[in-house]
Amino acid sequence: MEQAKANSQPVRDSFNSVPTAVSALCAVVSGVRRGLVATSLSVGVSYEPPMVAFSVLNSSQTWPHLRTAQRIGVSVLGDSQAKACRQIASKHGDRFAGLDITTSSEGAMFLGGAISWMDCSIVNIADAGDHELVLLQVHRVSSFDGEPLLFHRTDFRRLETLAASNDVVVRG
Amino acid sequence: MEQAKANSQPVRDSFNSVPTAVSALCAVVSGVRRGLVATSLSVGVSYEPPMVAFSVLNSSQTWPHLRTAQRIGVSVLGDSQAKACRQIASKHGDRFAGLDITTSSEGAMFLGGAISWMDCSIVNIADAGDHELVLLQVHRVSSFDGEPLLFHRTDFRRLETLAASNDVVVRG
Repeated sequence: MEQAKANSQPVRDSFNSVPTAVSALCAVVSGVRRGLVATSLSVGVSYEPPMVAFSVLNSSQTWPHLRTAQRIGVSVLGDSQAKACRQIASKHGDRFAGLDITTSSEGAMFLGGAISWMDCSIVNIADAGDHELVLLQVHRVSSFDGEPLLFHRTDFRRLETLAASNDVVVRG
Repeated sequence: MEQAKANSQPVRDSFNSVPTAVSALCAVVSGVRRGLVATSLSVGVSYEPPMVAFSVLNSSQTWPHLRTAQRIGVSVLGDSQAKACRQIASKHGDRFAGLDITTSSEGAMFLGGAISWMDCSIVNIADAGDHELVLLQVHRVSSFDGEPLLFHRTDFRRLETLAASNDVVVRG
């Protein structure tokens, strides 16, 4: 095994090998629409009460605003939302132009085309190296038909159903 | 949207819609091989220093032992390891019988066939409802060729490569 030096390629290779869902966390804060994309959303952190978690880089320009939101809308992106994902993650232009947005009375913003919406508030923010690890309580949910968008080894991908999921999977 | 009541079906549907990698966290503790399966591993929680996180149910029988380990081996499972996953998650029998195991001098256990290994120690454990949210520092890593195993809507799945990942994904 290789030493896990900070920011090293072996660490990036190892982290990149783990496939993740892609989520947009969005809210209207002081009248301005704010949003960021996270590949670190972890669901089922708790079921009683329902909680999820994600991590955000300390240098994020959006997070200092978004963390002050009363409610944050989490949209788990569907496999037709790669372009929307890039738009929201972009540092340039209107991140929400042309997107199908639903805003709650408390300012949480949700994206049409997502496979799940979670209306969340922040429970705890913990320092974790160069990121913060954010614990969110989930107050309301919606689920939709559709397949998820995935991020794996720096590329967007989607799921394939295994032929016989109760058997051992044989590759090739 | 529906109210996110504790343990309710709408919450489970929402959480289940999020695809996850599948990881085995294993170590030899006081001479006994211990292991649990997590679908909550979040990587890239920090790169400097390298950290990952996962959550574990308060009622876990394995975690009280595993949390005392000097080092915990995280194996991100490959798409041929659905059977190994079920075996390690089972409450009955030898969880490691017949599996290809590599054990470090500090007791971290890793599974052959995984796509990534991370040799970790616990940095912090935070209460999060009916789970604990565990922050791990990554000390050593290995990455391997192969495709990941995924868990989605209570079933094992694997990844499909999108035809043109730089374009908008069109379903159908």
